[in-house]
Amino acid sequence: MVTANDLATVPAEIWGGSVEAWDGSVEAANDEAFRRLNDADPWVVDVRPAREVLPGYRDNLVLTSGAPMPWEAYVGGQREALIGGALFEGLAADRDEAIARFADGSIEIGACHDYNAVGSLAGIYTASMPVFVVENRTHGNVGFCNFYEGKEPRRLNYGCYDEGVHERLEHVNTVLAPVVGEAIRRRGGIALKPMIARALRMGDEVHSRNAAASILFNREILPSVLDMIEDSVPGVRETMLHLAENDYFFLRLSMAAAKASADAMVVPGSTLVSAMAFSCRGFAIKLAGLGNTWFEGPPPIHQGKLFAGHSEDEITWMGGESPITETVGLGGFAQACALSLQDYQGGSPEVMIERNREMYEITHGENSSYRIPLFGFRGTPTGVDARKVLDTAVLPVMDVGLAGRDGGQIGAGVIRAPRECFAAALDEHAKRYGQS
Amino acid sequence: MVTANDLATVPAEIWGGSVEAWDGSVEAANDEAFRRLNDADPWVVDVRPAREVLPGYRDNLVLTSGAPMPWEAYVGGQREALIGGALFEGLAADRDEAIARFADGSIEIGACHDYNAVGSLAGIYTASMPVFVVENRTHGNVGFCNFYEGKEPRRLNYGCYDEGVHERLEHVNTVLAPVVGEAIRRRGGIALKPMIARALRMGDEVHSRNAAASILFNREILPSVLDMIEDSVPGVRETMLHLAENDYFFLRLSMAAAKASADAMVVPGSTLVSAMAFSCRGFAIKLAGLGNTWFEGPPPIHQGKLFAGHSEDEITWMGGESPITETVGLGGFAQACALSLQDYQGGSPEVMIERNREMYEITHGENSSYRIPLFGFRGTPTGVDARKVLDTAVLPVMDVGLAGRDGGQIGAGVIRAPRECFAAALDEHAKRYGQS
Repeated sequence: MVTANDLATVPAEIWGGSVEAWDGSVEAANDEAFRRLNDADPWVVDVRPAREVLPGYRDNLVLTSGAPMPWEAYVGGQREALIGGALFEGLAADRDEAIARFADGSIEIGACHDYNAVGSLAGIYTASMPVFVVENRTHGNVGFCNFYEGKEPRRLNYGCYDEGVHERLEHVNTVLAPVVGEAIRRRGGIALKPMIARALRMGDEVHSRNAAASILFNREILPSVLDMIEDSVPGVRETMLHLAENDYFFLRLSMAAAKASADAMVVPGSTLVSAMAFSCRGFAIKLAGLGNTWFEGPPPIHQGKLFAGHSEDEITWMGGESPITETVGLGGFAQACALSLQDYQGGSPEVMIERNREMYEITHGENSSYRIPLFGFRGTPTGVDARKVLDTAVLPVMDVGLAGRDGGQIGAGVIRAPRECFAAALDEHAKRYGQS
Repeated sequence: MVTANDLATVPAEIWGGSVEAWDGSVEAANDEAFRRLNDADPWVVDVRPAREVLPGYRDNLVLTSGAPMPWEAYVGGQREALIGGALFEGLAADRDEAIARFADGSIEIGACHDYNAVGSLAGIYTASMPVFVVENRTHGNVGFCNFYEGKEPRRLNYGCYDEGVHERLEHVNTVLAPVVGEAIRRRGGIALKPMIARALRMGDEVHSRNAAASILFNREILPSVLDMIEDSVPGVRETMLHLAENDYFFLRLSMAAAKASADAMVVPGSTLVSAMAFSCRGFAIKLAGLGNTWFEGPPPIHQGKLFAGHSEDEITWMGGESPITETVGLGGFAQACALSLQDYQGGSPEVMIERNREMYEITHGENSSYRIPLFGFRGTPTGVDARKVLDTAVLPVMDVGLAGRDGGQIGAGVIRAPRECFAAALDEHAKRYGQS
């Protein structure tokens, strides 16, 4: 039986009643988990520093992607990113001090998901970093994601930290985020689901392609922005010009929206996947019926397209929680909406379409808001059922950016979640619920 | 042999040499016409009242869609639209006076194409109406199109004229157009081809769907707009909010861009179509090798989806020159980019895709800028060859709005150009060039 402990970070009201209420039907639990996911109504309502809004945040805490691990387990780019985060936040004067303080625990490491947040790639959060606050108005829970750093391939979330990275992060903290936050507040919050649904008709899948969603968001804040210019709010002009040039801006909103939606899926007995993420060590999933427990496997299987001048052997894993978008039926599960990704991440339209169709074999239902024009507006395949993954041997597909071992983005592609996570999750499900 | 007279409105330099230079090969002429179309580089550089920029415009002139006809031949909605135009411009005090003055010729009627312009639906231009000035920077010619009236189904271009129509047109003249014009001038002109190419990746075909292109245009003028707000230019705020709500805004820019591109196609001996348009009487085309002569046929064949509360027998033809977009390889020739049109104009993705593929059978080449993600970025079928239309019996397809007999838009759909136009054009081609 699931204990309340497993669900520490899930607000009690999300359970929709006591754990003992499970009636023994996995199918009914999955129906309910799907319904909760499908009914979620994410609104971005604010932008605030992590320390002010992430539950239980401490000033010496640095968050990163994937199932939580001890400091020693973080290697390569993800380790570099943690060190960079500590330096950016001023938690250590230099690299050596940062390493020593991570080792002695005076700088703490946390897993983003434990704070209702999701991280892109290495997924570093520090106390001062602004985050989008996304409320699920159907179920009352909140999800968070911090800001896109910009187009430069060298970014903290890709394991890089230098003067340029520092400046761009500082610019987010002091200029972009305050302006975007005020624009959002002046709108009284912005519903993200209709915007995402619309972007799917405009060539996005809101994971690796956000070109339409980003300008739709800009359009949505335009009335606030015009008022703010009249009110002489500083930084508005440069923020708007920055947003206009950053087609990836919306990803962090789609991630926060997905997190706020997926967190509502906690339903005893359900075998539906409620989170997918990876770290430098490997891939991991959560099930809607098993609360906050991660089930780990090896790193994902990938197939990608590298930027000029890079080679396959440079590809490295340094974390990633953007697969929360696939968890809710977007990204790879909507890639037939975004066929121009063939340019960016490789593949052909035929392969992308087939891959998207295949996801219907492993999902519980079809999204009633997110729809695919190419499939006659059929809803996106939504709610991965771990049982179907094992039965069909079809692995969930995700559209991701690829990181290089020396840091920075070196390409993009698709990954598949490893089978082992699903097997481990169903083993535990069988232990707890006596069937699966 | 083509005479200079046939080409009265085509600048001499567009001919690329003397008419006698034709070497007797239709294929070579078509290669050249296609090359000219494909190489065109349309930039919007200004917004000006028609009287200031349309060549030879007179204050008592009202333009309308289709091959030119005498006043008596205009019936139904197109006649109503002409009368509305005269009233809007103050050329007559009331309806009866307008009719009398059209009849005695003291208000003149012209065909949009003869003034390097294209009209949407009834396509009414009057002297004070602002037009987009689009320069083809490769070939030096200019194309024009006036402004979208807004979402309201009752519009002058759909044969309606009343207080509301008048107010919206006046608002375009006095607020929207001056602001948009200044924003364009401050940018030093805006290249439309890359914007259209981008919109094709974002679910538009820039005829019946312009949702992406419209916001891309808004984004492009943003730097000007921010400056204009600082400079306290009046009307900026309301213009930007208006643009943000009007997904059809860009159509007039895509039409003007298409006109400026197609007009560069004039090449002796060519059998490629350089214009397609219709009036209340019927459909008509021009050939690149036959200058300014229209070849007429019956009204188009249609298949559409009507707004709630309307029926098939209400559909009426009151003109339309937006098929200039299909002439250059957009609209119906790119509808596999815009599958969400199935909602608006009916049909299924399969039918739309098949229809788009079919257009390759009747076109000379594939556009090197306008590409279709679903077809692996194959260029759109471009440059309809009248010979292929007759040989294959495949008729060019166009995405259009449908007008009702009582005025206003009552739906949307696809139309096919009638075979007769192509037969008539090739007869004339045979007479002039001795083969076809």
